[in-house]
Parts: sequence; structure tokens; C-alpha cells
Amino acid sequence: MTQESLKQDRVLALSGGVGGAKLALGLRNVVPAGKLTIVANTGDDFEHLGLHVSPDIDTLLYTLAGLDNSETGWGRRDETWTFMAVLAALGGETWFRLGDGDLAIHVERTRRLSAGEPLSNIIRDFAKRLDVRAAIVPMSDDPVRTRVRTAAGWLDFQRYFVEQQCRPAVTDFSYDGASTAEPHPDFVAALTHPELRAVVICPSNPFISIEPILAVPGVREALRACAAPVVAVAPIVGDQAVKGPTAKMMRELGLKVSAETVAERYADLLDGFIVDDGDAPLLPTLPIPAIAAKAVMVSLADREQLAKMTLALADDISRRHSQAAVIKK
Amino acid sequence: MTQESLKQDRVLALSGGVGGAKLALGLRNVVPAGKLTIVANTGDDFEHLGLHVSPDIDTLLYTLAGLDNSETGWGRRDETWTFMAVLAALGGETWFRLGDGDLAIHVERTRRLSAGEPLSNIIRDFAKRLDVRAAIVPMSDDPVRTRVRTAAGWLDFQRYFVEQQCRPAVTDFSYDGASTAEPHPDFVAALTHPELRAVVICPSNPFISIEPILAVPGVREALRACAAPVVAVAPIVGDQAVKGPTAKMMRELGLKVSAETVAERYADLLDGFIVDDGDAPLLPTLPIPAIAAKAVMVSLADREQLAKMTLALADDISRRHSQAAVIKK
Repeated sequence: MTQESLKQDRVLALSGGVGGAKLALGLRNVVPAGKLTIVANTGDDFEHLGLHVSPDIDTLLYTLAGLDNSETGWGRRDETWTFMAVLAALGGETWFRLGDGDLAIHVERTRRLSAGEPLSNIIRDFAKRLDVRAAIVPMSDDPVRTRVRTAAGWLDFQRYFVEQQCRPAVTDFSYDGASTAEPHPDFVAALTHPELRAVVICPSNPFISIEPILAVPGVREALRACAAPVVAVAPIVGDQAVKGPTAKMMRELGLKVSAETVAERYADLLDGFIVDDGDAPLLPTLPIPAIAAKAVMVSLADREQLAKMTLALADDISRRHSQAAVIKK
Repeated sequence: MTQESLKQDRVLALSGGVGGAKLALGLRNVVPAGKLTIVANTGDDFEHLGLHVSPDIDTLLYTLAGLDNSETGWGRRDETWTFMAVLAALGGETWFRLGDGDLAIHVERTRRLSAGEPLSNIIRDFAKRLDVRAAIVPMSDDPVRTRVRTAAGWLDFQRYFVEQQCRPAVTDFSYDGASTAEPHPDFVAALTHPELRAVVICPSNPFISIEPILAVPGVREALRACAAPVVAVAPIVGDQAVKGPTAKMMRELGLKVSAETVAERYADLLDGFIVDDGDAPLLPTLPIPAIAAKAVMVSLADREQLAKMTLALADDISRRHSQAAVIKK
């Protein structure tokens, strides 16, 4: 390794909620302090009870701050539920459950947004206060809202996801506002940083977590043009989603439920791909350099190990690229 | 008693928070079902954390629903405080403490207000859902905001009351918005109802609970013109306030700390006055017909007994008025 390549120690991760946050935590623990930027999907943000809720950002904050609730897979640990009980007694909407502690982040975010502060500023401050030790950047400070097309028409994402528990069959997605949204400047800066080591697409749902990020103008092109390797971890193992409705959505869209489908959707921008050990037989058929690893993360060690494997794959791709460049010369 | 007078069974109470709510509860228990209207001060309403907080209305709701916290004297019983703990960790404002259950009423009220519903509608619905069994009517659906003048200038009421714990000496009050507010139609209807038995001014702070109500255009005149007796219960016993800063405010304003001062402030509209037994010596000096009773309400029985005494005084005044009318004829 040359002196120059040693300087490449920055990592950019793209993530949705729970599945992505697991790898993001692993990355935070294996990347040097201050060198990890996580770009979060905001397509599932919504207004509820007059409050601005940012589910993926909050999952990242809670997970990286060690405040996540491992039992439910969402929300905070040591949560209380007095608010919801009283809200029900007052006839309020209870389909989206907000814990008492979780509510604080929504109330305070909404207050600061109403005062004119951009979402990214607020999240930067929350991350600092919660000792997250990574930069969490909304993909855009402009609103993007994922909607889901079903037989019953277009549904707002959280109505589909939480209220209807993903029951309606999906025929399409839209990312309202994406076409006029600007990618956050810190996102652009991270993508073009000369010290960037790797871009990691976390094992999040392609349709509702990663593709809303890719729908922001310029992002897909910037990933294609990125000097550092772009690697993704498959959110599908065999024909099952590691978490959530990814497999169900693929079936409903007429796609093959396989890590392969994910690789194909990102093929134009990926340099490397990681599938679960069980999917090792897929490796020769994939359109991009790929390795198998333990992609189902149970323990913290699993998360850190997968993070290391992901970065090792990226480093390997970088090395091969620079060797090829030398040979070309 | 004539057949006609038997029909006069409706009671209208004017109330602030804790002290007033005690008598309001007593009245609710001794007045026939559906016949009590409580007009609540909204001068201490305010926006906090982006939420519309109505302290006096909520104290009335909680007290009449049996949900009040008798230990703190404010908020709800069986409350949890997770929201405040997390809000503090996020750097939010914590000088005004909102319990997790209490928060539900503020969030839901704010949501419904933002959707264009008048405050009074929302409170009517909450009262029904919480089984309050009395009509709680905001003095006005238009915003009125009490401000307190101190050596340091004008302070918003809750900043003075909660954040500064009433420490600054008071020189004046203003009820911003009062001069253009309309009294709530149900308030006007209750005041002019042919079956009205009595108007009861609860033992609330004159400056910050009752006078904001009286500052709404037409209210003072309507009370003066009211066919039913208007009776008040003194919030001062000896030279002490039963609750809160009433005595401190009187001293700072250069007023004599005495039930007498309260009677004088309402003299133009009062037909009867109730002082505590300990203040019986004051009775001959008061400008209006008065009786002494146990005005410090400790038990529920105390509240009901004081309510009965108050209504009995009103009935006595009515009887004397009609006798006087007969004699005149």
C-alpha cells in the first residue's frame, strides 16, 4: 500500500432503518473516529399528530447511541407508553405508536423545524448530544415522501407500512418531491471526498430505503462516477428478507426473490456485492465482483465482522483498480 | 318557593385552575346532572414546544374526571416522565414540566386546533370522553394572553409563573387580546338562561384567573345585568392565599391582603360573598351580603359542603329579591 492510499479512511454508508442501522453500527465501530458519514433515507418521514416523524433517522440515532429497543426492533429501550394510553382515552389516532421518550425527539424536531432550522442541522445536534459518534445526514433537507401503489390506489408510506402492516399487494412506488429535492451538501461532499475509502449500501429494502435516496437528482450519477468503490450488502438471504417486507414486495412486483435481483437493481453503480454465506452458489452468476459473508447479523460481533468484510472487499476492489491503472500505463 | 323558582336549577361557575377547580368539583356533585357550566380562564394558555397548553382548562378536566394529581396540585395522577428526561438529553426546554400523559392532551388539542377546530369544541369532546359531567367552556375561543409587569419589564404569564416561580414583584397585568375577544356563545347563553339559579365566582386568583374572564368585552356588564345572583368565594383567608401567589400579588400592588379586597374588586357585579369562618369578623364591613363558611377545602365533603353553602346563599338572595319585588308591587 502506498502512503497515499493510507489516507483513504473515510466511509460513506447509505441506510434505511433497522437492517441498515445494524451494519451502520458495525461500521461506526470499525471505522476511525469521525470518518463515517451515514446518509439516511427520509422518504418514510411523515407528519403525524402534527409532529414531524423521521423513522429511519431515529432508528440510526437510537442504534448508534445504544438506545435502540432490541425487543421490538423499533423505538427506544426502557420506553413508557403513558402518552398513547391517554391519547386513546381522548379519541386520538393510535395506529402509529409513539413511546413517551420517542415522542421527545419528534416534538423537539418539529419545534426546531417550525423555527426554520433545516432537518440536517437538528439531526447533527441530536447526534452530538446522544454521542452517536458518526455523521448522520438526511439524504436531502427537502421533503421526499415515499408512496406505495396498491390495488386500492396510492397509499402514504406509513399508512401502508404501519397501519395496514404491508398487507396490500404493491404494484409501484413513488418518491414524491424527489425530482426537485437537492442532495444534502454533506452527502455530495462525502461522495467526492478525496479521502473516501468506500461507499457502503447497507442491507436495507431497495424500494423503500435505498431507491428513495437514489431518486434524488444527481445521486445515482455521483455514485457511478465515485472514485471510491461502491459496495452493497444484500438484504435478501435465499428467498427471504432478513427483515421487513422486501421479499413480499419483490414477489408482488413479479421480481425473482433473490440477492441477485438487488445486485441487478444497483448494477450500474456497484463495484462489489456481498451475499450471505448461504447464497455463495449465486456468486458466479452475479454481474459484479461479489463475496459471501455472514450477512445475518445477530450479535454486535456479527455487525463489526460484516463491516470489516465489506470494507475489505472495497479495499480489494481499489487495489485491483489501481493495479489495472498501473498496467494500463 | 313557587313552582317557577323550582325550575331555576342551572349554575354557571367562573374558574381558574386548582383553587377554582376544587369548588367546581363540589358544584358538579351537588348540581343536577347537565346543569353546571364552568367558564374557564384561558389567559394563561400558551404555546410551548409548539404545543397549545391550556393549564386552567386541563386542571378543570382532570379534577372533574378524577384524574388530578393531589400530591403535586397540578397535572395528572399516575404520571410518568420519560418525555421530559429524553427532551433534556436532546437539549430541549425543560422549565415547563409536561408529564407523558399530560402531553397527550396538548398534542391532540394542538392537532385539532391546527385543523381549524375551535378550542371550545375540542374541550367539549375531551370532557365527554373523560366523563367530566359538566360543561367546561373557554371564556373565549379567541386568544387572550395574560402578561405580568415586573421591574424587569413585561413577562409572559408562564415565564413569570413557572419559570421564575412568581419571584419578580408585580406592578401590573395585561390581558393581551381580551379587548377584541368575543365571549364564548355558551358563556353568554348560560348568563342569560331563564333557568339560571346562580353565578359562582370560584376562589381563584382575581388578577390572573377571574379578571382575564371579566376583561372579555361584555362579560362584566352581563354579570351586572344577570337576573340570577352572582356570588363569589374568597380566595384569601386572613392575610394568606388559600393557594398560589394571590397574597403576594396583593402586597406588591399595594392592596390590603384581605378577602375584603377581593369583594371590593368584584363589588359592581356581586350579590353575595363567602369568606372563611376565620374571617367572620369582616362580615359587617363588607360592601355586599356575605356569610362565613369553611372556605379551605381539604376533603371532597368540604368541596360539596362549600358548594351547597354557596348555592344556599344565592337562593337566599333570590328569595329576598323576589320578596322585595312583591313588596314593591
